Amino acid sequence: MTTYTDAGVDISEADRAVELFSEKVRATYDGVPGVTFRKSKQFAGLVHFDGVPDVDFGFSIDGIGTKLLIALQLNQFDTVGECLVSHCINDLLTAGIRARILLDYVATAGLKAETMAAIVNSIADACKRHGIVLVGGETAEMPQVYVDGAYDMVACIQGFVKPQNVIDGSAVRPGDSIWALPSSGCGNNGFSLLRKVNPDFSEMFMSTGRTIGDELLTPTRSYEREVFAAIAAGCKIHGMANITGGGIPGNLRRIIPEGCAAHLEQAVIEPRIPAIMTFTQERGHVPWDDMVNTFNLGVGYIVVLPESSSKKLVDASDGEAFRIGAIVKDTGDTIQFDNNWGSF
Amino acid sequence: MTTYTDAGVDISEADRAVELFSEKVRATYDGVPGVTFRKSKQFAGLVHFDGVPDVDFGFSIDGIGTKLLIALQLNQFDTVGECLVSHCINDLLTAGIRARILLDYVATAGLKAETMAAIVNSIADACKRHGIVLVGGETAEMPQVYVDGAYDMVACIQGFVKPQNVIDGSAVRPGDSIWALPSSGCGNNGFSLLRKVNPDFSEMFMSTGRTIGDELLTPTRSYEREVFAAIAAGCKIHGMANITGGGIPGNLRRIIPEGCAAHLEQAVIEPRIPAIMTFTQERGHVPWDDMVNTFNLGVGYIVVLPESSSKKLVDASDGEAFRIGAIVKDTGDTIQFDNNWGSF
Repeated sequence: MTTYTDAGVDISEADRAVELFSEKVRATYDGVPGVTFRKSKQFAGLVHFDGVPDVDFGFSIDGIGTKLLIALQLNQFDTVGECLVSHCINDLLTAGIRARILLDYVATAGLKAETMAAIVNSIADACKRHGIVLVGGETAEMPQVYVDGAYDMVACIQGFVKPQNVIDGSAVRPGDSIWALPSSGCGNNGFSLLRKVNPDFSEMFMSTGRTIGDELLTPTRSYEREVFAAIAAGCKIHGMANITGGGIPGNLRRIIPEGCAAHLEQAVIEPRIPAIMTFTQERGHVPWDDMVNTFNLGVGYIVVLPESSSKKLVDASDGEAFRIGAIVKDTGDTIQFDNNWGSF
Repeated sequence: MTTYTDAGVDISEADRAVELFSEKVRATYDGVPGVTFRKSKQFAGLVHFDGVPDVDFGFSIDGIGTKLLIALQLNQFDTVGECLVSHCINDLLTAGIRARILLDYVATAGLKAETMAAIVNSIADACKRHGIVLVGGETAEMPQVYVDGAYDMVACIQGFVKPQNVIDGSAVRPGDSIWALPSSGCGNNGFSLLRKVNPDFSEMFMSTGRTIGDELLTPTRSYEREVFAAIAAGCKIHGMANITGGGIPGNLRRIIPEGCAAHLEQAVIEPRIPAIMTFTQERGHVPWDDMVNTFNLGVGYIVVLPESSSKKLVDASDGEAFRIGAIVKDTGDTIQFDNNWGSF
């Protein structure tokens, strides 16, 4: 049996760190003249500046974890920039914000120009594809901080929106439908576990004709096109969640109001779980509790809306969106699967 | 003899990486509807959004390199946040921009809640002191990327300014005076070299009563108060440079126009070099070429202005500012020290 903790990642320790620093972080939210921070548990930090009327700004910062180690081992960097940029785009998108600019940070122990350039070029290509200006960046060489040959990459993204168009989950209510947009694979999460269970990236993956390495490096996709097409068509979106680290329970819960719960149909999700995930679950005897709390299970992005708006989302996504549940009035667990995955 | 390359940092390889990725990065600058990027070699990326009139935004991202390793070894995190935040503040400040918001990223191999929280709390405290909202952040746990026990910390900062108040170095001209604001120590740069030459942080530093560790962890200072006080008093600033990695030559050159050079008085700078730098130079027999290209040499921040504005800067800095040279018409080396440090 291989758990996420076995793979070297201890989520509970990370949660404990957040508890230990959240008070001082919150203390910065107030008292800065001219800056109003919208406190929320959202995927992007939302700010209003007094000197800049009629606009709210959204910010997010993230990396792609140990997915980059696979690219480094295979010397195959064509997808890592897309993985990073799409993830950040989706974080802003949950607030209804289109990404405009990005800054990157790439660091390693002993900088090799070709490797560093391949990583940054991959980020720049992804920015270009998505219409984002790469306004700044930093490369750092830090012996004794990074493992020889390993790199970390981070992006900070920003965009803006009219305040009346911010989507913050506050409109989510009982009776709303919960729709999923499919993931393109594992996204950027669970890679320490994926790598532990599947250490040989050159191994062929089932009968796909692709290697495990190819499969793991599948680019994370963004949902900007689909969501803005739906909004343009008049779709009333109440809340959105980017399904990243923490899986469906860890991310969907951020937009579920007090006194409500998300009731999810496990039987709809199960057949859509990407093969690499079920393959890893079986090979590693990964407990389903770890699977549900680590992977997106094929649900890359969640849109919560009144049922009357559903068709607009389905159309905007060329039929890709699929309904996975509903918001119900409930004071029990916030995330409830209707079968053996249980409640969270 | 200990050079920066001996300490594991190869600046020329980093420069070569920049050459290999700059074309694709530049390709993102144009063609994004509604976003105008001011191309420059400045310390902050400057952007104008069509939907947000009368305001230009500045962005920067940076870390503090291996300075954090010293804090980790001594379990002494009270200054590292200030080091990171001040550095980023100074980057924006060179464009005349006051920092408003910041996002942080802290990553390690095996997350310890107390250590992670001490680092993030240090950043949050520094934000609070400087009136910056910490709008977002990410903590990451990446086995096999980070050396056991090592952490990296990164900040992305943003502020804004009226376009007519942007300072971008374009006004710098022959005859301008070059003034320095003193550094508080090594800033955040050269720590791989400092650590290699001074590996025992518990050693007493000369007769200061402080240890080498205390000395190295001296917080990096920001110059926001002095610069905005000078501007408020009517000081006409033509250009500013944050003296970080690359030293005076690597940073001041960014604001020297074509056909001009900075003529610098070595004899003014030499007596103000912080003792820890000369101590490290002597102990490690560090070549002066490496010293000049690595350390700030006591010049934490440079302000270029017409001589007629000098008194306003001196007054705003309570007499701390000192004149280190002038801009001259010259097509030779851009940075010229008037003695044996030579030209760059």
